[in-house]
Amino acid sequence: MSRRTGQLKLGAFLYPGGHHVAAWRHPDAQADAGVNFAHYAALARAAEAAKFDLVFLADGVSVRGDDIDALSRTATRYVGQFEPITLLSAVAALTSRIGLVATASTTYNEPFHIARKYASLDHISGGRAGWNLVTSADEREAYNFGREAHLAHALRYQRAEEFYDVVTGLWDTWEDDAFLRDKDSGIFFDPGKLHYLEHQGEHFRVRGPLNVPRPPQGHPVVVQAGSSEAGKALAARSAEVIFTAQQTLEDAQAFYADVKGRLAAHGRTPDELKIMPGVFPVVGRTRAEAEAKYQEIQDLIHPVVGLSLLSKHIGADLTGVDVDGPLPDLPETNGAKSRQALLVALARRENLTIRELYLRIAGARGHWTVVGTAEDIADQLQERFEGYGADGFNVMPPHLPKGLDDFIEHVIPELRRRGLFRTEYEGKTLRENLGLARPPHRVHRRADGAVEAAE
Amino acid sequence: MSRRTGQLKLGAFLYPGGHHVAAWRHPDAQADAGVNFAHYAALARAAEAAKFDLVFLADGVSVRGDDIDALSRTATRYVGQFEPITLLSAVAALTSRIGLVATASTTYNEPFHIARKYASLDHISGGRAGWNLVTSADEREAYNFGREAHLAHALRYQRAEEFYDVVTGLWDTWEDDAFLRDKDSGIFFDPGKLHYLEHQGEHFRVRGPLNVPRPPQGHPVVVQAGSSEAGKALAARSAEVIFTAQQTLEDAQAFYADVKGRLAAHGRTPDELKIMPGVFPVVGRTRAEAEAKYQEIQDLIHPVVGLSLLSKHIGADLTGVDVDGPLPDLPETNGAKSRQALLVALARRENLTIRELYLRIAGARGHWTVVGTAEDIADQLQERFEGYGADGFNVMPPHLPKGLDDFIEHVIPELRRRGLFRTEYEGKTLRENLGLARPPHRVHRRADGAVEAAE
Repeated sequence: MSRRTGQLKLGAFLYPGGHHVAAWRHPDAQADAGVNFAHYAALARAAEAAKFDLVFLADGVSVRGDDIDALSRTATRYVGQFEPITLLSAVAALTSRIGLVATASTTYNEPFHIARKYASLDHISGGRAGWNLVTSADEREAYNFGREAHLAHALRYQRAEEFYDVVTGLWDTWEDDAFLRDKDSGIFFDPGKLHYLEHQGEHFRVRGPLNVPRPPQGHPVVVQAGSSEAGKALAARSAEVIFTAQQTLEDAQAFYADVKGRLAAHGRTPDELKIMPGVFPVVGRTRAEAEAKYQEIQDLIHPVVGLSLLSKHIGADLTGVDVDGPLPDLPETNGAKSRQALLVALARRENLTIRELYLRIAGARGHWTVVGTAEDIADQLQERFEGYGADGFNVMPPHLPKGLDDFIEHVIPELRRRGLFRTEYEGKTLRENLGLARPPHRVHRRADGAVEAAE
Repeated sequence: MSRRTGQLKLGAFLYPGGHHVAAWRHPDAQADAGVNFAHYAALARAAEAAKFDLVFLADGVSVRGDDIDALSRTATRYVGQFEPITLLSAVAALTSRIGLVATASTTYNEPFHIARKYASLDHISGGRAGWNLVTSADEREAYNFGREAHLAHALRYQRAEEFYDVVTGLWDTWEDDAFLRDKDSGIFFDPGKLHYLEHQGEHFRVRGPLNVPRPPQGHPVVVQAGSSEAGKALAARSAEVIFTAQQTLEDAQAFYADVKGRLAAHGRTPDELKIMPGVFPVVGRTRAEAEAKYQEIQDLIHPVVGLSLLSKHIGADLTGVDVDGPLPDLPETNGAKSRQALLVALARRENLTIRELYLRIAGARGHWTVVGTAEDIADQLQERFEGYGADGFNVMPPHLPKGLDDFIEHVIPELRRRGLFRTEYEGKTLRENLGLARPPHRVHRRADGAVEAAE
């Protein structure tokens, strides 16, 4: 396979005070970021000035964690944050070109509400909305929606498939040119261009129509983040962007080839799905400065927080152990056995203290960490992009706003020098900038998925 | 009872192209208003410049009407509009003082989602959010949410009561000063100021906490619109603003005295609930000009639309009858018998054609219509306000944007000349401008509803 050419796509993944688990404690971080609208507005405008394709917001409908001591020391587990669609709609009013991608779960939502909100955001923003479709991973969400137990994984994915069908179906209940608004004749819409959905499925019954006209993009861009087998199967059918996490080039290439290879079975070409792994960049003017910056923020992880995260990953309660001593022998976990074995082996092999062990996993929350000069970071992004490991990257600054500013000031110019990133937006909508076609209305699609010649 | 003094409150009720059923056809109306964000942004800014207390948005989660011919000629039955919270969040970014009140139903929503969105909007806007709490009146909503039949009226109100308790409970899961964000100690929040909700009721089980800090206003302002016995009972317990419709001063005074009289039983004073009836003003420089303006927009009602609305009100299908002939004898309705009798009596007494009859009811959708000069309109508002028929008014311009501009340009200066309306905002939050106290957190309230002395 030859090295690929072209330009990569960039998302700015905004996480309240930054992506590092201790970000909010950093002197440069905005500690009240979760409910500071001016903070988000400034970040989105900075990302737009730098020509990022999109800003990206995660979501959850629970406060994640019952270890109150550890929870009370973190700002990054859906504790005290804006609801993302409400936030992005306000951001839409202050920006004009950047894409606005918000996460919403299919597990504890209704498709009519979701279809309507993203259609509204797409109209308000002039075609810049994206929906990161997820299933709920945290069982605490169930307790906020009248359930005593979390929906099982397989059921969540079945529900997600049908949810996707209903939402995209609702976006197509009105044809693009249904609304005539002809004052003289008094005809507001053409009744022949209204299509009731009449969906009757396993999980949902939805009549429609949606009470919002077809979105400017036809459908807001559908993003997904699942890497499980069920997640990849759903993405191959329906995702247009995948946000993912791979630590190594080899893993990234394998994931890329796997998912892209599944598209043909759905009548899709590789270009119809953009793979954008997360990257956690720590930028310095020298490597030593970058390492020092990384160490500075790592030092802010409180042992209670580090232990809580390590306990979760290793499947054993480490509360109360000496963090500067060695890892004790652990009872066998009935959770993720292979991950426990991996971490124990790592600790024994490198003779790590518990603190050293949690520092390996806690900071970037499992994402690909690159520490170095702008050239170092550009080298690594270029390698993954040209080596078919990624179509672009979702940038996860360690702390905000400074971490995003650093990337914009140092890494983006370096990417541009190499011809890898745009200097001006190609289009007005998120689809146009990502190079994704506008989906034709379903009345113009043939049963095999191809578009009628008339379209 | 002496005539009251003080100043009245004003809401700008924004309805896509205007409140008249044929508004969108008017030459001055914005026909694509439903999804035209610039239109709403300009209206909200104009209302803010004029010092309105709030903008108000209605809502529904269905397209209302199955008579497609009539429906295709109206823009005012939740056909092709923004979702209101998404819209007001974008408006929040472009305004700084005006209140932002969006309607959301308790019938086909989940309280966690609603609590979260309004809390977000309150944070984004710096304390300007209001929630118009309604129950769904349209059975078509059921079909968009997996139900074959609409929830019965009594059940909807039971659900609404409990929904209110859950939402306000979630707003109080964090105390005002729970988030310390102390970088030095690493304490993000004080665990003692987090309160799980643990709600277990007839309709909902919600554990909490909400993943948004307590709103700037404590609770966003709760607005209600129901005038039924169940609606008034709910409002007396929980509403802070009532939006209502009464045609005559006597009816307005009776409603006002009824609702205000119910407050004491809940330990509330009359000032804790503001009654703001809708008013549909047609302003002219002379009475003749105002009458001509009203006639101009009345003439835009297409017979199909007029007949459809009259059929609905009179409980009989009038499709196909001669609109310029008399009302035929009607089969007995099993719906609203008293309303049918009223309309038949009116038509017979005044010898009205069908067209004349539907013109009496269709235009302002049942709201109080005042047609005249700025002085005439100010006289009528003053009479209702000083006569204890209203604490303020929700202004429903016939068409938009011009109808709002007319009110601002002509009526507001006249109200100010009489000392009846503000020239500057009293406060920064919607509560401060409406003169409503900020609710203390429930840990500072005694069981009888009074506030602890410490608060």
